[in-house]
Amino acid sequence: MNQLENISAQSIQTETLLEKVIEAWTLLHTQQPLVHCITNSVAANYVANVLLAAGASPAMIDNPFEAESFANIASALSINLGTPTTEQMQAMKIAAQTAQIKAMPWVLDPVGYGTFLKWRSEMVDQLVLLKPTIIRGNASEISTLAGNQVQSKGVDSTLASDDVYQTALTLLECTECVAISGESDFILSKELDITIKVNGGSYLQPKVTATGCALGALIAAYGAVTTPTLAALAAHIHFAIAGKLAFEKTQSVGSFNVAFLDAIYEINAEKIYEYADFEVLK
Amino acid sequence: MNQLENISAQSIQTETLLEKVIEAWTLLHTQQPLVHCITNSVAANYVANVLLAAGASPAMIDNPFEAESFANIASALSINLGTPTTEQMQAMKIAAQTAQIKAMPWVLDPVGYGTFLKWRSEMVDQLVLLKPTIIRGNASEISTLAGNQVQSKGVDSTLASDDVYQTALTLLECTECVAISGESDFILSKELDITIKVNGGSYLQPKVTATGCALGALIAAYGAVTTPTLAALAAHIHFAIAGKLAFEKTQSVGSFNVAFLDAIYEINAEKIYEYADFEVLK
Amino acid sequence: MNQLENISAQSIQTETLLEKVIEAWTLLHTQQPLVHCITNSVAANYVANVLLAAGASPAMIDNPFEAESFANIASALSINLGTPTTEQMQAMKIAAQTAQIKAMPWVLDPVGYGTFLKWRSEMVDQLVLLKPTIIRGNASEISTLAGNQVQSKGVDSTLASDDVYQTALTLLECTECVAISGESDFILSKELDITIKVNGGSYLQPKVTATGCALGALIAAYGAVTTPTLAALAAHIHFAIAGKLAFEKTQSVGSFNVAFLDAIYEINAEKIYEYADFEVLK
Repeated sequence: MNQLENISAQSIQTETLLEKVIEAWTLLHTQQPLVHCITNSVAANYVANVLLAAGASPAMIDNPFEAESFANIASALSINLGTPTTEQMQAMKIAAQTAQIKAMPWVLDPVGYGTFLKWRSEMVDQLVLLKPTIIRGNASEISTLAGNQVQSKGVDSTLASDDVYQTALTLLECTECVAISGESDFILSKELDITIKVNGGSYLQPKVTATGCALGALIAAYGAVTTPTLAALAAHIHFAIAGKLAFEKTQSVGSFNVAFLDAIYEINAEKIYEYADFEVLK
Repeated sequence: MNQLENISAQSIQTETLLEKVIEAWTLLHTQQPLVHCITNSVAANYVANVLLAAGASPAMIDNPFEAESFANIASALSINLGTPTTEQMQAMKIAAQTAQIKAMPWVLDPVGYGTFLKWRSEMVDQLVLLKPTIIRGNASEISTLAGNQVQSKGVDSTLASDDVYQTALTLLECTECVAISGESDFILSKELDITIKVNGGSYLQPKVTATGCALGALIAAYGAVTTPTLAALAAHIHFAIAGKLAFEKTQSVGSFNVAFLDAIYEINAEKIYEYADFEVLK
Repeated sequence: MNQLENISAQSIQTETLLEKVIEAWTLLHTQQPLVHCITNSVAANYVANVLLAAGASPAMIDNPFEAESFANIASALSINLGTPTTEQMQAMKIAAQTAQIKAMPWVLDPVGYGTFLKWRSEMVDQLVLLKPTIIRGNASEISTLAGNQVQSKGVDSTLASDDVYQTALTLLECTECVAISGESDFILSKELDITIKVNGGSYLQPKVTATGCALGALIAAYGAVTTPTLAALAAHIHFAIAGKLAFEKTQSVGSFNVAFLDAIYEINAEKIYEYADFEVLK
């Protein structure tokens, strides 16, 4: 292919992906999938509100005694390592095993993965062996998980997503899809053998806690209605557009948080078509 | 009684109930009762803010080591099974026993009751034996608790409240009052031998997480200042009016959530008198 | 010194303190210190959002298996006894010990300290022996901790801060600084041998849950960049100004909560200079 043909092929692919994202959004609203969430105490309320606003039906079942039976009726599973307890850790493992057995899509968000948080990092290593459908995190977490040495600063990233995404390709041995959030987001797809860069959002998003956690749960929700790559792409586009629209309304964190939830709820096919901003990198 | 007399008797009863609801609202503000809450990680912040906005004094004491001593100084107790832990389960049982012994009003909210969440459902069965003053839940939960076979979908209801309320009357053997939330709310009273239907609210309420949980806690708060039936009625009217007023201001979920809390706080006797919309069914 | 000289000396001191508070605010934004928070389920989301809005980098690490390693990389620690679990209790002790060993500033917020909440109160007594850098609480908690008999009402104060602050001076044997929140706030400093009264805020602040908890965490954040007394002073001024500015925008609790977070984020040197309202009492 010469360069022109290549560009043309890419723009056809981009257009096709966009159509499928809109289809996924529609399916999420019509099917309202039940999403089993095991998340942290900081994010629980926000995650539930984001999923409800997006049209899904969230349930936070994070005890080991109900994790299996509930994973068995859910349509997707989201596991987030933010503030684990011993009981949550047991629940995570049971729920992930159940998801693997019934081939239910599940998302692993390895919050804080790294040297200084060993307990959760060891659990993440065990969960990775259960083949999460999608792994999503910030650049520091994903880079460390891919085996790189990273200077950690708590649960916030110290790296830029564009510096990391290529080294994260090795993670595709353990999962269908890797999603890295940052100023730009990167989605690494095994199924399509491409990397997608998603632009948009707002610099205020990292200033509101739990946005990353909610993004992980939203990927899981989309995972119930479409393929792993499209689930990650749809969720990131949904978030990036909501961030953009919220920022147009307000530039302060408290009101941004409210406007963001409004925008998650108000998004529709037209807005996705108008505002989605992503490119296929290879 | 002929039909006209019957209608007239009912409208007198409605008027009397409304006066008593306003009285309860006033007492809640003047007495600011201490409400002992054992609730879930999704709802904790929201429940506390709703109770504070309504004039009560909430305290989330959910460990088994302090549950008894704290229940002993509280004026009401609210138990919610949303995201139970082993320690919370122990605390629930201790607090409920303490409430029973001191004859303190307490509310049981059996979130997710049903086949797929056995651990909590067995605890609910045990708690029901301790005679909760009021049992409140959505139509699925209440119907299942009343012994019916229900298709569960996580923690959201799959049934309409008007299809369920008559089958729930059997629960009055275990409690003074049953409250079922839905598009319309139903309050089943043992003390008055009536069923009350409360209209109002907004279709957005189920789109905001933890509204049901907060409603349960608000019933408990009112329970500290009035009878079980009036407590349930006052709380449901308070919520329905707040939902209506919030929806007049905004039709998106994030800002609705904020406007709803504002409305909970801004309600007063005049607004209750103007907007309360309920009817006595028998 | 005659009286005029005394007043003049005090106003110089006030001016100097104000300059240092502005310096601390600047440092908080440039250094974005990592703050290790162990807090309650009601406050977790709010605390994280307040710290992010103020420029700090919060991380809620509340399990005993990671408390030591994380405290070792953090710049400050905030311990809040709101809704303790057994695992959190273990984490608190480990983190506090780690802070003491590495001489990291840490804040103790003894939520609900008193006769009816013995489990946490005994833990608070143990934590006090580990010499918290700053102890902060409402008037009831601080007064009880200072050995006075207080009628408790859950986690809200039954006392006024001005009636309590003098009896709390004895606590300076265990800590560098005591901060008492209320209609006016009082900061008792061992290092400067003064008491500072901070005015401002809004009567709506106690109507929003977790504001006290967030204040404790903000003191810890400032503690990473300045001395204990200045950290307490800067955090209280930051809060009082935010409360004042938020109240100018709205007088209802839901929207106040949002406006308050906006104001925490929007504060700058000019606003601190213009609105800070405090006096040195001795």
